[in-house]
Amino acid sequence: MRSIDINCDCGESFGNWQMGADESLLPLLTTANVACGFHAGDPQVMMRTIGLAQEHRVAVGAHPGLPDLLGFGRRRMQIAPAEAHSYILYQAGALKAMLEARGMALHHVKPHGALYAMLNDDSELAAAAAQAIVEVCPRPLLYWPAPTKGNALPDVAASRGIRVIGEVYVDLDYDRHGRLILQRRKEAVDLTRVRRRLEEFIATGSVASVTGETVAMPAESICIHGDGPNALDILKTVRDVLAEHQTEIGAAAAEGPAGRRAAAS
Amino acid sequence: MRSIDINCDCGESFGNWQMGADESLLPLLTTANVACGFHAGDPQVMMRTIGLAQEHRVAVGAHPGLPDLLGFGRRRMQIAPAEAHSYILYQAGALKAMLEARGMALHHVKPHGALYAMLNDDSELAAAAAQAIVEVCPRPLLYWPAPTKGNALPDVAASRGIRVIGEVYVDLDYDRHGRLILQRRKEAVDLTRVRRRLEEFIATGSVASVTGETVAMPAESICIHGDGPNALDILKTVRDVLAEHQTEIGAAAAEGPAGRRAAAS
Amino acid sequence: MRSIDINCDCGESFGNWQMGADESLLPLLTTANVACGFHAGDPQVMMRTIGLAQEHRVAVGAHPGLPDLLGFGRRRMQIAPAEAHSYILYQAGALKAMLEARGMALHHVKPHGALYAMLNDDSELAAAAAQAIVEVCPRPLLYWPAPTKGNALPDVAASRGIRVIGEVYVDLDYDRHGRLILQRRKEAVDLTRVRRRLEEFIATGSVASVTGETVAMPAESICIHGDGPNALDILKTVRDVLAEHQTEIGAAAAEGPAGRRAAAS
Amino acid sequence: MRSIDINCDCGESFGNWQMGADESLLPLLTTANVACGFHAGDPQVMMRTIGLAQEHRVAVGAHPGLPDLLGFGRRRMQIAPAEAHSYILYQAGALKAMLEARGMALHHVKPHGALYAMLNDDSELAAAAAQAIVEVCPRPLLYWPAPTKGNALPDVAASRGIRVIGEVYVDLDYDRHGRLILQRRKEAVDLTRVRRRLEEFIATGSVASVTGETVAMPAESICIHGDGPNALDILKTVRDVLAEHQTEIGAAAAEGPAGRRAAAS
Repeated sequence: MRSIDINCDCGESFGNWQMGADESLLPLLTTANVACGFHAGDPQVMMRTIGLAQEHRVAVGAHPGLPDLLGFGRRRMQIAPAEAHSYILYQAGALKAMLEARGMALHHVKPHGALYAMLNDDSELAAAAAQAIVEVCPRPLLYWPAPTKGNALPDVAASRGIRVIGEVYVDLDYDRHGRLILQRRKEAVDLTRVRRRLEEFIATGSVASVTGETVAMPAESICIHGDGPNALDILKTVRDVLAEHQTEIGAAAAEGPAGRRAAAS
Repeated sequence: MRSIDINCDCGESFGNWQMGADESLLPLLTTANVACGFHAGDPQVMMRTIGLAQEHRVAVGAHPGLPDLLGFGRRRMQIAPAEAHSYILYQAGALKAMLEARGMALHHVKPHGALYAMLNDDSELAAAAAQAIVEVCPRPLLYWPAPTKGNALPDVAASRGIRVIGEVYVDLDYDRHGRLILQRRKEAVDLTRVRRRLEEFIATGSVASVTGETVAMPAESICIHGDGPNALDILKTVRDVLAEHQTEIGAAAAEGPAGRRAAAS
Repeated sequence: MRSIDINCDCGESFGNWQMGADESLLPLLTTANVACGFHAGDPQVMMRTIGLAQEHRVAVGAHPGLPDLLGFGRRRMQIAPAEAHSYILYQAGALKAMLEARGMALHHVKPHGALYAMLNDDSELAAAAAQAIVEVCPRPLLYWPAPTKGNALPDVAASRGIRVIGEVYVDLDYDRHGRLILQRRKEAVDLTRVRRRLEEFIATGSVASVTGETVAMPAESICIHGDGPNALDILKTVRDVLAEHQTEIGAAAAEGPAGRRAAAS
Repeated sequence: MRSIDINCDCGESFGNWQMGADESLLPLLTTANVACGFHAGDPQVMMRTIGLAQEHRVAVGAHPGLPDLLGFGRRRMQIAPAEAHSYILYQAGALKAMLEARGMALHHVKPHGALYAMLNDDSELAAAAAQAIVEVCPRPLLYWPAPTKGNALPDVAASRGIRVIGEVYVDLDYDRHGRLILQRRKEAVDLTRVRRRLEEFIATGSVASVTGETVAMPAESICIHGDGPNALDILKTVRDVLAEHQTEIGAAAAEGPAGRRAAAS
């Protein structure tokens, strides 16, 4: 592995309500997934988050969600494919205009919460979402938990020319099928385990499941949860481990590893 | 006058609630001001309205409003300049992404309701709004009721390189200062008066006020209210009068009349 | 049958958007199901609807929905039982306070759209909803499409002492299981069929399904859809048929038919 | 002074966003002003807050605000008197139903933020708000910063039979006219000054302004700001001072001091 990306959800405050620790986390990220007002975020929060990202040279992607502020976009809603398309286009388009106003470009799209879960399962919704991503991203990139194969949106995205960036989670456990085991409550994560999982991933491109199996993890980005109680410590640990292993850090590139090799030769 | 634009607010439905007669009006317009979801409109309505506009070769501008669905954006709210900026950028940006997905461009910005009224009065809000228009419009155009001079946003817009398209209203009366007299209730408008006012405007570039004064009306667009009971009849009358007077019809151009002269010579 | 109730959803306008024909329909109803602001309606619309209901001596029930204005409460959302409870209590409580301010009482609760469908299926949500109905209704009544037996909320409601008022729909078809066949588009309903279905119901307490079976319809109320193109004609037909058959018209009573018999003896 | 009330705004979280420290503050209050969903709060937060209040025997009042979640109800909006009336009735009614479901009663109404400011200034809005309070409160009480005389809502409230509970603020400064000097940023408040101001108030019924004048403070309740960084310390200081001065603590009573004297004789 020559270079790895570190991404985190950002801009999840809303109006007077604060969430996350964007100011301390952003300087240590390479890409930020910014909420766009449907499940979190608002125009002021988006502008502020973009400003911080620019200051710290962090690439910004859209983090669109379901229109459910009350439920933080975490409750499945029965939406039609045309709605999935227009909701993503609307949210990512609003963010893109703000980025362009600051001389930045929309880097990627990463669906949030229940919208993510629905796009993982439903191929009609996924086709509509892929269409929106192709339309709104200058060089279409999709972030998705690795392993991405066999899931609705990553599969259709690949067929539409969208590059899919697999993500590895160092602050969560995996089951034997490579599925993330979500915590009920946000508790402080054991930093030794974060270190061990990341070292294994760097050395082997795989992680150990909770039941001991080795799970291949074709990932180009490390995803950090910004809302845990020790998110900053996790992020610092990740940066330390990467430095110790001489792993370069950088935002995922649209042309992909192949593209970079081609360019280098 | 070689050519005139005809604009109308469109896309003001929301979810299951219908408003306006976009399907019958759009074929007769040259530009449409499309609501962007804060005071009216939603992503599905926006996509549908853009589709109709494309079918009828109508240029589409953003019609941003205050975040007040309940009050249809008609109630003044005490917002800060940074909020005026980010609210316009967000709404126009969302619409722009949808237009670009259909191979169209964002044509202009026209603020709605109480936001319009606030931007007419307050120069700090106006400066923030002008900034958003410059940032989001590829070739910045602002639509505003004529006479525009002496009003906050048109004045600052002109100084920022935004071309201001003055509008004449043929379905409303003017007072001696050239101010529109708003109807309390939407009533059917007398078509003979529409015809007379438009003929006077074509012949002289001015209209008569309710008290008989002649008011100069430096306008390049005719604005039609889509929500009146006989909006379609008014629009047909306008098209008839323009045809009788050999007036060309076309969306206002970003380069302006001077630009067109220069191009022609 | 000594007396029958006629109910209709009312107060479904929102802000500047009109829906339904409350002013013409309300004089012909005995009970109105009033939207409470989550999927439709707003405080001003609610006050106006209550005023009309009072003028025409129409009993008012709450018509609570999911928090989804954009989807008109017609999209299923994954909510928890505690949310079903607090959402119904909030909405019905707001309406109740408005009714009490006018010297009226909250008559019943009738869930709307996707919330209705979810409460038909899910017994945990249904138990939570029944709790809210018992808490907010002075004399708890629930309106539900007949036949109600075997459906989650009506079953638990009966066990909680809530009287369940079965509804017959004269403007929709039934399948052989007594399930309503929903129209895709709101089209004008054939008045002869309305008349025939209602006459059959009055004579036999049952209706014919689309495939010819006789379906028992233990109903005390006729539900009219206020948003169809000929809703007023349907309602007038219903009133005519009831008059021709000497059927008394009146809001369903909390004490029920048994109660009325007891009171009469 | 025989007894004093201590109130604080509570239930200002929304969905996944936390605000305030209700769990630690509520045990030390006698009355809580609970947000009702328009500017903050939601049905789940309201139920949780009521549950805490019941556990600690705290009386609960409604804290209605403008329909502006994005602005936390702190931005003036141009609303009509009928809207002020229906918005307060809706919000307080929803809370009242939840209280009654727990065997509690709605204790008082205290308008929030910009709605408070508008009701302080505009007598037409104030008359509409007073009407709502009379309609929704079993024994109408209004909380308002002392001195209340000469302000729109307290004046009309008194004439409508609503008892007005004046509040003294021990964590803010006063100008010579008895007007509160609002902090730009929430900073930790000097506890010595809190102690000194409260001791002066207990001894004399007045406080010193920032310019040294003595300002009479006809107050029956101490209002604490729950969102400051040392809110809990301020509240503990208040309780300590009141204990040292043998001042009884209790929720303001609807019958008022006169009523209590009458009852005692």
